[in-house]
Amino acid sequence: AQSSVTIYGKIELAAGKPTGTTDKQIMDNNTGSRIGFRGVEDLGGGMQALFGFEHRLSPDTGTSTSTNFWNGYSTVGLAGSFGRVNLGRQYVAAFTHIQNQIDPFSGDTQAALRDTGMRFGGITKVRVADSIRYDFSANGINFAASVGEAPAGSPDRPMSVAVNYSAGPMFLGLGIENPEGANDNVWNIGGRYNFGFATLSAGYGKGSNNANVDAKGFLLGAVVPFGATDFKIGYAENKLDNTSLKTKRASIGADYNLSKRTKLFANYSKVGGGVPVGPKSGYSAGINHSF
Amino acid sequence: AQSSVTIYGKIELAAGKPTGTTDKQIMDNNTGSRIGFRGVEDLGGGMQALFGFEHRLSPDTGTSTSTNFWNGYSTVGLAGSFGRVNLGRQYVAAFTHIQNQIDPFSGDTQAALRDTGMRFGGITKVRVADSIRYDFSANGINFAASVGEAPAGSPDRPMSVAVNYSAGPMFLGLGIENPEGANDNVWNIGGRYNFGFATLSAGYGKGSNNANVDAKGFLLGAVVPFGATDFKIGYAENKLDNTSLKTKRASIGADYNLSKRTKLFANYSKVGGGVPVGPKSGYSAGINHSF
Amino acid sequence: AQSSVTIYGKIELAAGKPTGTTDKQIMDNNTGSRIGFRGVEDLGGGMQALFGFEHRLSPDTGTSTSTNFWNGYSTVGLAGSFGRVNLGRQYVAAFTHIQNQIDPFSGDTQAALRDTGMRFGGITKVRVADSIRYDFSANGINFAASVGEAPAGSPDRPMSVAVNYSAGPMFLGLGIENPEGANDNVWNIGGRYNFGFATLSAGYGKGSNNANVDAKGFLLGAVVPFGATDFKIGYAENKLDNTSLKTKRASIGADYNLSKRTKLFANYSKVGGGVPVGPKSGYSAGINHSF
Repeated sequence: AQSSVTIYGKIELAAGKPTGTTDKQIMDNNTGSRIGFRGVEDLGGGMQALFGFEHRLSPDTGTSTSTNFWNGYSTVGLAGSFGRVNLGRQYVAAFTHIQNQIDPFSGDTQAALRDTGMRFGGITKVRVADSIRYDFSANGINFAASVGEAPAGSPDRPMSVAVNYSAGPMFLGLGIENPEGANDNVWNIGGRYNFGFATLSAGYGKGSNNANVDAKGFLLGAVVPFGATDFKIGYAENKLDNTSLKTKRASIGADYNLSKRTKLFANYSKVGGGVPVGPKSGYSAGINHSF
Repeated sequence: AQSSVTIYGKIELAAGKPTGTTDKQIMDNNTGSRIGFRGVEDLGGGMQALFGFEHRLSPDTGTSTSTNFWNGYSTVGLAGSFGRVNLGRQYVAAFTHIQNQIDPFSGDTQAALRDTGMRFGGITKVRVADSIRYDFSANGINFAASVGEAPAGSPDRPMSVAVNYSAGPMFLGLGIENPEGANDNVWNIGGRYNFGFATLSAGYGKGSNNANVDAKGFLLGAVVPFGATDFKIGYAENKLDNTSLKTKRASIGADYNLSKRTKLFANYSKVGGGVPVGPKSGYSAGINHSF
Repeated sequence: AQSSVTIYGKIELAAGKPTGTTDKQIMDNNTGSRIGFRGVEDLGGGMQALFGFEHRLSPDTGTSTSTNFWNGYSTVGLAGSFGRVNLGRQYVAAFTHIQNQIDPFSGDTQAALRDTGMRFGGITKVRVADSIRYDFSANGINFAASVGEAPAGSPDRPMSVAVNYSAGPMFLGLGIENPEGANDNVWNIGGRYNFGFATLSAGYGKGSNNANVDAKGFLLGAVVPFGATDFKIGYAENKLDNTSLKTKRASIGADYNLSKRTKLFANYSKVGGGVPVGPKSGYSAGINHSF
């Protein structure tokens, strides 16, 4: 009876220890475990109605990860030859099109480099509520623009425009984001190239936080497939101009793919620079299952 | 594997400005965006077991609309030749059978007239927890009676009885509701008639709130279909006896049906009388998708 | 589109009055009304990936029963010839394998005896967060071991080991549980035998709570099938060593099975001993539907 609804999701859990603590734990930090409901209705004439909402959960404790129950997104929209328009709470254009594209760990697990190298200084948003987003894709080029309501007391409407190009082994992306503060803004650029023996990726970003402090960061990564195993390594750092200290993270890990939907993983991270407090190394081993 | 569960729902979002504020926004006020799970089991001999629970969400922010996660309803019951009996948190009889039947805007969007003309004075409840409800339908006549536990500190059990008749172009309904307070009670009457070129509707209600202040209201509406478009217009007002001021709302709008499940809409409202504060006009344009 | 997800659940509501109150009510206490999402992926070579998460709701009020939205469990794991390993928030081994096996009322409704006779003194946990659990079954023998993180400020990791044997008419189970406190621990033993005209069950437990007070309890039960009706009767009590007072509960009831998935039930309980306050009798009649 669910012909118009698709249920999908992902659940990831690991045993390990994040950086910054001595607490060995069963953990799901950074994993994005989720269950979502989405659907597409064919309206004829090349038009489609789209909807979706996605819950994020912390499976180690059985709780919602956020007071926003549908923390992933909640949207309804239309698609056609003109592209796609969605209303609701949804991803910022720069997040989907470039900020989340460079990290070899895909922003998952304690080893994730994305938030160090591509989303630094407390500038960026992953999602914006009360927003409109437009997407258009053609000939390998994917364009997106998102704008949300200015939150109460904030001077700006959070805006973002991003574009990427994906063809064969190559991915290139560029995004700009102007969050709701008066001074905050950032741009990111990056790419990936699949050389066959390895996919190398590099990204860079530069911006200013709402206190008008300049910040910049970069991320370098590599994924080396070997049979069913993907070896991963990467390094990211960022620096705010009002401090001489960088924030650094290096990670190494491997995914063992049991199927297209299920993998085991193990990884190790080390943080450096002046900002991190507590133990500088972290590690985890676990399972990631999509459905 | 879901043969016994149906997933259904509705999601509506608009850009606009409600009455009472200057805040232009992406909004889902009054929309009832929802996802529900329900099922029917054939028990043989004309008997069925029924269950359902329905979540209400605010897709503009990705949150639950209520601390009651299953704010729509949550019931289990039996159906047979005797009718249907459901236990749980569920709709009040007068709400489903008359109060929610007259508004050409169906209680949705900022243009909704239902809560001005049919559910006034803070008397009525949409749903009652800890309740039993009985429904019986035959020959176009639909009868319902609901009774809930008296909430802690309340003198009355919330009760409601309602009946409507639907046949061909005609709908007539009548309901009475006695909520949990000592003095609150209301009755509503109304009807719709589909003349082909238009469906006209009218409803009236009269009651008393828990402070024993008499209140009355009415609602007039019309829906004029024109190809795939439904033009809608209506007016509602109510008045409490302890004030010389009426609360008034007039709304006009149009739905463009992209399919049976998806429509675009635009509407404009104006409120009047003494009660409303802030800007008196509101408008919205958006999309409503059922699944 | 849900080939990889199974939706399942149970909803139970009754009219009645629990022990300890004079409040007649629509109630779902002890029922475990739920909706869950689970799936199994065949990985080849006898291996499977497993996931599931289960929400618990109170259908009388439409609320989540816990601030843990996924209060039932939330796990991901692997199964194979080696058994099953799951990570997440999940049932304690002793709960599933013995504590929840003896009560003829299955821990459901106001008549439930489980928490009096098998889970006494505030010692046991139903579930543990941040845990690993291992299950192995062969030749009718089912073994489970679970261990969770020590909660902040607690000296112990909650651990449990349990085994049961189920063959034909016979069930035997044994479990030990050592929760997170310094002094708390308990073991349970019990069994069921289906004599055809009746299934008789008996269980016993002995332990110590975290204040180092010894406690013990037992449960006796019988289920007598008669056509579509299951008559149920049982008695449970427990006693803490620092009091001369026992906590006692006797229950009698009947389930009328409308189908394999739906039953009507009625039951009566009486509590005794020194601990209960308020009215000592309770009763309920209602419906239980699985999907």
